[in-house]
Amino acid sequence: MPRCIAVDLGGTLLRVAEVNERAEIAWRASVPTANTGHPQHVLDQISELIDVHASHAVDGIAVAAPGPLDSRQGVVARIPTLKGWNDVPLRDALRTRFSLPVLVENDAIAAAVGQWRYGAGSGCDSLVYLTISTGIGGGIISDGRVVRGRRGFAGHFGHMLLDPRSSLRCACGHLGCFEAHASGSALDSQARLMSSQGSSKCQALWAQVVRDTQPAASHLALAARLGHEPSLRAWRKLGVRLAQGVVSIVHALDPERVILGGGVSQSYEWFEASLHEQLAQLLMPEFKSVTVIPAHELQDAGLLGVASLLMETIQS
Amino acid sequence: MPRCIAVDLGGTLLRVAEVNERAEIAWRASVPTANTGHPQHVLDQISELIDVHASHAVDGIAVAAPGPLDSRQGVVARIPTLKGWNDVPLRDALRTRFSLPVLVENDAIAAAVGQWRYGAGSGCDSLVYLTISTGIGGGIISDGRVVRGRRGFAGHFGHMLLDPRSSLRCACGHLGCFEAHASGSALDSQARLMSSQGSSKCQALWAQVVRDTQPAASHLALAARLGHEPSLRAWRKLGVRLAQGVVSIVHALDPERVILGGGVSQSYEWFEASLHEQLAQLLMPEFKSVTVIPAHELQDAGLLGVASLLMETIQS
Repeated sequence: MPRCIAVDLGGTLLRVAEVNERAEIAWRASVPTANTGHPQHVLDQISELIDVHASHAVDGIAVAAPGPLDSRQGVVARIPTLKGWNDVPLRDALRTRFSLPVLVENDAIAAAVGQWRYGAGSGCDSLVYLTISTGIGGGIISDGRVVRGRRGFAGHFGHMLLDPRSSLRCACGHLGCFEAHASGSALDSQARLMSSQGSSKCQALWAQVVRDTQPAASHLALAARLGHEPSLRAWRKLGVRLAQGVVSIVHALDPERVILGGGVSQSYEWFEASLHEQLAQLLMPEFKSVTVIPAHELQDAGLLGVASLLMETIQS
Repeated sequence: MPRCIAVDLGGTLLRVAEVNERAEIAWRASVPTANTGHPQHVLDQISELIDVHASHAVDGIAVAAPGPLDSRQGVVARIPTLKGWNDVPLRDALRTRFSLPVLVENDAIAAAVGQWRYGAGSGCDSLVYLTISTGIGGGIISDGRVVRGRRGFAGHFGHMLLDPRSSLRCACGHLGCFEAHASGSALDSQARLMSSQGSSKCQALWAQVVRDTQPAASHLALAARLGHEPSLRAWRKLGVRLAQGVVSIVHALDPERVILGGGVSQSYEWFEASLHEQLAQLLMPEFKSVTVIPAHELQDAGLLGVASLLMETIQS
């Protein structure tokens, strides 16, 4: 049975697994991604993990890496958190080193494929996957095919312009991006701005958070659970902003499902109501039947997704 | 050689032509679309035009009609300007009447295909076509394939939310849609609001327009040519708003080209500068290489596009 090495090249963690065509994982391993300024050190790490764990030959290597990533040329344009990762011809470097077929794909597109084949997108031909964590990225499946655009950069939903009058600056440097309003970073900013005044027990706890640490999205989830009204408001606002972006995506792409993944989506319960209320208000009648749901908790969605894309090319 | 009848079922004009697989038009004809509340009267019109003009059998019928249109089921969801066109199973009705293969497609997607194969999109694998007239619609080609979404409703770009704080109401009933800010209707509103005060010769002419008629987008183009500053400002503003929508589309879909069609795009010279200036400001570095250009003047883009889609299905 065909099997491959699947790699999730993250900005902090390098995850490697052996996956067969039934999406079964034989072994997996991870190490902190080497941030030495020399991409070949990450290739060394991949080699070592394979040497230690693999007990037989494989049919190819599939890599998911942060975008923008040119999946046609197999070139990683940049990884903001890793030094020296600018226009790295990752596919060719891996091919040369391992003499195997190599496929390189944007990690959000890989996760979209993983959710489509093994998660919340099962049985669905047209979907959009959104990963909502520090930033916002995504992947598009339409008519049972991955939509990549010219170079594989499609799905940079985080940099859709959500609010042209906004004064919120995005990590990309522009004002008013979807990501600036509806990501984990947006929640972090929100948390930092939240007052620690007030006399309730919740407010006292929040004051302690402010004193002891830099308040962030994670605190908002805990505080919401304790009934902290400003935190609950922050989540409701996130739901509204998310809906505003999702509405544009749905009208542009007519997906059957929109699947919300990434760390922020694990707090779905806190923004579910405002998200769906806003969607009901803003979607045109013909588009109201779209299903907007959280991703399945699939730790390996990206690994399985990118492995399945490689298996297709090997078998075809 | 395969040939078909191509139909452009417009809200005001019904255009019919015979097209062969080389995209040559043997004959064409048009009549005002029958607006009797009975869709079968439009089918009667199509029959009559075929009876009068066709001198031999054809291999199928391809229809472009306004959306939302379910191209999988061949059902026209609604045509706002024609009475009785709600959930009309147009494909099945035509099949029954003519006993021929029938393909039904959204008119903006048909025009996108026409521009892709015979116009400004030639030789390009990934593009977005925008039709900017009374409203804004469009079509997506990615990786050499039409992106339709679940039912064929993809490309409703006009109802992307451009400005959540806007007080401009769109024809769809919502506030702040792309269409409310950057279409011919937006220009019409703009023209109506424009002052007829001022002492310059241009202002005197504008005062006459206001006195004699309802000012509209068409007057703005004429007035711009005469150097009327308020009209030039209206066009510059349109370019800025168009750019804001195009930026979201480009980051979401990574097209190689964005092609601007529809009546408003014929005034491209008046908004070209502000459009490109704003695009240069708002696009991420990796996306700046996208080409944003006017459509080729192809009166028959929709007819040729939908005919070519039908030819594909007949031959495959």
